[in-house]
Amino acid sequence: MNDTIKSIATIMKDLDGILIFPHINMDGDALGSATALCLALRELGKKAYVMINEPVPKNLDFLECGCTTDDDSVLDDVQLSVMVDCNGMNRIPGREVAWERGRLKGCIDHHQTKAKDIRYDFSRIEPKSAATGEIIYNIVKALGVGISLDIANAIFTAITTDTGNFQHSNTTSRSHEIAGHLYRIEGFNSKVISALIYDRRSKNAIRMEGRVIDDLKFYADGKLVAGKVTLDLLKECGCTMDEADGIIQKMMSIDGVEAACLFKESENNVRASLRGRSYANVAKAAAVFGGGGHVLAAGCTFFCTVEEAEKKIIPVLIETVNTRDR
Amino acid sequence: MNDTIKSIATIMKDLDGILIFPHINMDGDALGSATALCLALRELGKKAYVMINEPVPKNLDFLECGCTTDDDSVLDDVQLSVMVDCNGMNRIPGREVAWERGRLKGCIDHHQTKAKDIRYDFSRIEPKSAATGEIIYNIVKALGVGISLDIANAIFTAITTDTGNFQHSNTTSRSHEIAGHLYRIEGFNSKVISALIYDRRSKNAIRMEGRVIDDLKFYADGKLVAGKVTLDLLKECGCTMDEADGIIQKMMSIDGVEAACLFKESENNVRASLRGRSYANVAKAAAVFGGGGHVLAAGCTFFCTVEEAEKKIIPVLIETVNTRDR
Repeated sequence: MNDTIKSIATIMKDLDGILIFPHINMDGDALGSATALCLALRELGKKAYVMINEPVPKNLDFLECGCTTDDDSVLDDVQLSVMVDCNGMNRIPGREVAWERGRLKGCIDHHQTKAKDIRYDFSRIEPKSAATGEIIYNIVKALGVGISLDIANAIFTAITTDTGNFQHSNTTSRSHEIAGHLYRIEGFNSKVISALIYDRRSKNAIRMEGRVIDDLKFYADGKLVAGKVTLDLLKECGCTMDEADGIIQKMMSIDGVEAACLFKESENNVRASLRGRSYANVAKAAAVFGGGGHVLAAGCTFFCTVEEAEKKIIPVLIETVNTRDR
Repeated sequence: MNDTIKSIATIMKDLDGILIFPHINMDGDALGSATALCLALRELGKKAYVMINEPVPKNLDFLECGCTTDDDSVLDDVQLSVMVDCNGMNRIPGREVAWERGRLKGCIDHHQTKAKDIRYDFSRIEPKSAATGEIIYNIVKALGVGISLDIANAIFTAITTDTGNFQHSNTTSRSHEIAGHLYRIEGFNSKVISALIYDRRSKNAIRMEGRVIDDLKFYADGKLVAGKVTLDLLKECGCTMDEADGIIQKMMSIDGVEAACLFKESENNVRASLRGRSYANVAKAAAVFGGGGHVLAAGCTFFCTVEEAEKKIIPVLIETVNTRDR
């Protein structure tokens, strides 16, 4: 049962000492939503922190605003622990002790899967919201707090990243309406935020992407595309593997591609990242090799050379794109 | 002097036989705006066409809707010729005869540079509009025409492409408000449109992009990046020049880059596409070589080899990125 925005705001107004928990592997929506809520509570004179136990991703460093902490004992008295953009203890591993400190427990999320392992004192889950940032926007308004520039930046980050820059199918009229309101905040400049999120790729990373793309192989009449990031390539380009993020999305933008496979070679193994577009069940293909994931985004690991991994998985993936079993 | 949206709508309501001219090398805003206007005029029972003399880019083919023609004599009586997303005869080369057939001449645009070679009977130039599609949206409303799904798709295409998916600095509150309204049109699904625009890149195009990116040159401590699409490269990759779209955006996503220059070689000339990030006035740099455009997005044409064009413009662009005159 969903609590109302108004009742959640009323509960929060009466409390002090609030810890906010974004999910592990935080993204723009998780950290943006958590930061916006934290700043709004601080505007009301409350003590509030965003509790994390991993580094803030480089492209989201501008969201810092002094909100995050990894210190479990940052507050003497924790009246509320609230998960943001997640629900369930498996989404906040390593932060259980801090979580349990909250006398009340809350949850604000837009993910459909509802955890059964927690009894929340309040929870609001809106699966139709493109981003948790949209729910937070409404809570901030209900708290009676003016949208500061930092809050606007955090909410914009949450919405623009989770909607794929207003292109994914989760985008709604409301996503645009809220963004439209943010533009009216003094000093707001979405370009500045976009540039911080998206336009700080290294020369080396972008060159490496060029090399991988130039070297793609196509199978099954172009329905399957495969590429590889080898140790040699990383060395040659002066890159680390995390700089290969985004290459598989690029592969998926090719006309006629139904599935993509990107091999990532490390010292110990070869990881195959898999993506499907509409009907290809790549989780099933990954399972053949002991891997898993979602139907349209999965992965598996090989303990052999990239060439050997190719020989093993490509025939399976050709079968996958030639089969419409869903 | 700008005419009002209302007065332009009033003029159009009284006319029949209308030819609409998007600029050469039509993009999403040019063709989307022209198509939306054409469809709205047809809703009013008028004879209207979008006059073109080049193929519609493949990723915009869904905008067709039976509006475009290259037949100068498609209408017996042309009461109005109207440029959309451009102004000036140099933006509609090869279509002068058709243009002159209009008894009245109009212009609806958002480009700052105003042509001096035409006396328009009406013109509305809104440099602060992110896309001409926003002006067209208001004209369609002023015409009293309901926004059909085809019109919504065309306007969304115009706005999303010209704002770089709502990320460029030209984006305003209004861009989002209009997009928000479009979501309320029965059947509207931005994801379908986005996938048509962005996810049909050819294997060859994506490989060509890889090649250009791999071959980038950096100047001024990485503040300036330059790349080139030569005739040889096009031939080698089996691509046409319109498939080079998007490469310059990729160049702009590199950390520390303030300006980008992409040379595009054709049989007759070399076109330099220029982009600035924050302070680099690339329109000024383009003007040195007889070109023009927006402050942060401009272009100019050279009648020489790519190497000679490089020698001419790179020093000017280095000066540009080393100067903060705004």
